[in-house]
Amino acid sequence: MSVTTPKGFRAAGVTAGLKSSGARDVALIVNDGPDATVAAVFTTNRVKAAPVLWTQQVVRGGVVRAIVLNSGGANACTGPLGFQDTHATAERTATALSRSSARLLIGASEVAVCSTGLIGERLPMDRLLPGIGSAVRALARSGGPAAAEAIMTTDTRPKTTVAAGTGWTVGGMAKGAGMLAPGLATMLSVLTTDAVAGADALDEALRAACRRTFDRVDSDGCMSTNDTVILLASGASGIEPSQEELTAAVTAACHDLAQQLVADAEGATKQIAIEVFGAASEDDAVEVGRSVARNNLVKTALFGNDPNWGRILAAVGTTAAAFEPDGIDVAVNGVWVCRAGTAADDRSKVDLSGRDVTIEVNLNAGGDRATIWTNDLSHAYVHENSAYST
Amino acid sequence: MSVTTPKGFRAAGVTAGLKSSGARDVALIVNDGPDATVAAVFTTNRVKAAPVLWTQQVVRGGVVRAIVLNSGGANACTGPLGFQDTHATAERTATALSRSSARLLIGASEVAVCSTGLIGERLPMDRLLPGIGSAVRALARSGGPAAAEAIMTTDTRPKTTVAAGTGWTVGGMAKGAGMLAPGLATMLSVLTTDAVAGADALDEALRAACRRTFDRVDSDGCMSTNDTVILLASGASGIEPSQEELTAAVTAACHDLAQQLVADAEGATKQIAIEVFGAASEDDAVEVGRSVARNNLVKTALFGNDPNWGRILAAVGTTAAAFEPDGIDVAVNGVWVCRAGTAADDRSKVDLSGRDVTIEVNLNAGGDRATIWTNDLSHAYVHENSAYST
Repeated sequence: MSVTTPKGFRAAGVTAGLKSSGARDVALIVNDGPDATVAAVFTTNRVKAAPVLWTQQVVRGGVVRAIVLNSGGANACTGPLGFQDTHATAERTATALSRSSARLLIGASEVAVCSTGLIGERLPMDRLLPGIGSAVRALARSGGPAAAEAIMTTDTRPKTTVAAGTGWTVGGMAKGAGMLAPGLATMLSVLTTDAVAGADALDEALRAACRRTFDRVDSDGCMSTNDTVILLASGASGIEPSQEELTAAVTAACHDLAQQLVADAEGATKQIAIEVFGAASEDDAVEVGRSVARNNLVKTALFGNDPNWGRILAAVGTTAAAFEPDGIDVAVNGVWVCRAGTAADDRSKVDLSGRDVTIEVNLNAGGDRATIWTNDLSHAYVHENSAYST
Repeated sequence: MSVTTPKGFRAAGVTAGLKSSGARDVALIVNDGPDATVAAVFTTNRVKAAPVLWTQQVVRGGVVRAIVLNSGGANACTGPLGFQDTHATAERTATALSRSSARLLIGASEVAVCSTGLIGERLPMDRLLPGIGSAVRALARSGGPAAAEAIMTTDTRPKTTVAAGTGWTVGGMAKGAGMLAPGLATMLSVLTTDAVAGADALDEALRAACRRTFDRVDSDGCMSTNDTVILLASGASGIEPSQEELTAAVTAACHDLAQQLVADAEGATKQIAIEVFGAASEDDAVEVGRSVARNNLVKTALFGNDPNWGRILAAVGTTAAAFEPDGIDVAVNGVWVCRAGTAADDRSKVDLSGRDVTIEVNLNAGGDRATIWTNDLSHAYVHENSAYST
């Protein structure tokens, strides 16, 4: 049920002392092959963290044998020295791995690096580098769960998944509980598979999967500097699935992780699916769903168990999607409180007492649809994010 | 110090019973001339309230002799019946005014209507229409302050202003404390002047004024369905100012009202000016300022007195503005905590104990600038907006 479920992967999660809590904070995942193909997507934020800049280069090289991840610091907005820190992290990882086994003679250019935590501060390299040594020593076929723990920041629980193919599997882990509005990629997530798949097949599968899963999570409208999703293939199953099978399994894994992210979002009391249909295009549906998901008045209303459909319509009205204002229907948890742009069923029929909320928006403008997942805006979100760095 | 400061205007604010509190809820402003020229800007939200659709038509007619405004209901998303309610409101106002004075023989097509309050519910016309009669009887040269009170919703205080020309003045009032991210226009605001000015001159002055005042308020990123700003000219001073003088006075009035809106925003504990400079264009500066203003993580950090410049950079990074990530400088209340995209002055030097916060962002990409005004995201905002309609 983790990144070590597929054959050919080992992992570890150790405590290097980056987190004051003493919790695990360095994760390492090694691909023992026989293949070492890779695909990745990254944040579209133009302010990119040093590990994102590094890993983009590594992935371009086409071979990734190891990924080292740390929580306790994002290494973003840290300038050239921050980039040197990332480089040193990859170097140390490559060296330690090469010394640990004759079969693992790898270079820094085959080591991806991910970091997460506070933006704008240098990493304590005097603790991180020894932590890498510990992680190499702790590598195990059963190390996936520990690795998933080591990348947590404000997450309250680790997030892992598995999706089964026929004779092969996809495993995965992710972290992310705030600054959660991915553009192209999201947060940190590592997926592994023992399928035989070339880089192009992996890339196609990963982009298709992200587009309809991570990319449609919009917890708080805030795009991170560090978002990275990496998919590694070991080929250890000896089975080469069709592109459709591969894409389906990777999508299932990403979908499960994305749902776990929304379920664990900072301070959330509601897990909200905004299902937009009757759209003239899928892009229109995404634009409308995202506009509703980002609207603080909609989010606070749902926190207050208030099916305030007027705020939903006001959010839809700010978009450029095709629709007529008097042609929009809105349901909250199955009750069509708005039809043709005006009040319909009695809003008092809406039951918002549970955690799950479904908002349906019918634009009555076509046949396309999309779902965006978000959360409410609660006192706990304000509290957590007004106190995070201090 | 209100809409009745300029010569030629009378106003009233009365209680019609639309608000359960018993506070004033119907305002009326009458232009006694000799002129009745007008300019207006409206919300760019495509879901427009009935009074916006009505008043757009009225303003196109070129003559506005009266404006009737109600709080206690937005009359938005109310369908064809809601539009009939607005029409009936204008009709009743025209009839009552025509009966009150032989000098005021006006038609419904010369009466602008504005509404504000909850979206999606019909107005109680059995209370509103009698209230219009009361307002006509209460009209007075000193009625401006009562009118400003009558348009308040979650506002904690009325907002009025005056800007002096040479021998003429501009007066104004506004309301708005939430759903405050105007697109082109904002909230409800009525401006009056006794200057002699044609519709074109008024339009030019009003658009120029709004573009740099109301349009740059972005309190909570949520655009209203009812935003309307109307400028009426009576010509009663007999003085025709130059376009520059007119624009300057209208801009001064709008600026003062915009600042009052930000000062009274729902639940706010901070009044934040985001000053973006070194931009390649004014549009770039506005985009960057707005992105920072809408970022919930920046807003919660400031609520927590935390000069978290990393979140500011992450918000800048989501824009398409011209800049290099390693070329951005950020100051919070005068302390340059970030230079060249990385940590600079000690963040502990930043004093955030007061209500006013200035964030300076130097993009180092050109010579243009813009300021966006916003607020923090507080527990009180969440509380107020999770309980508003219930």
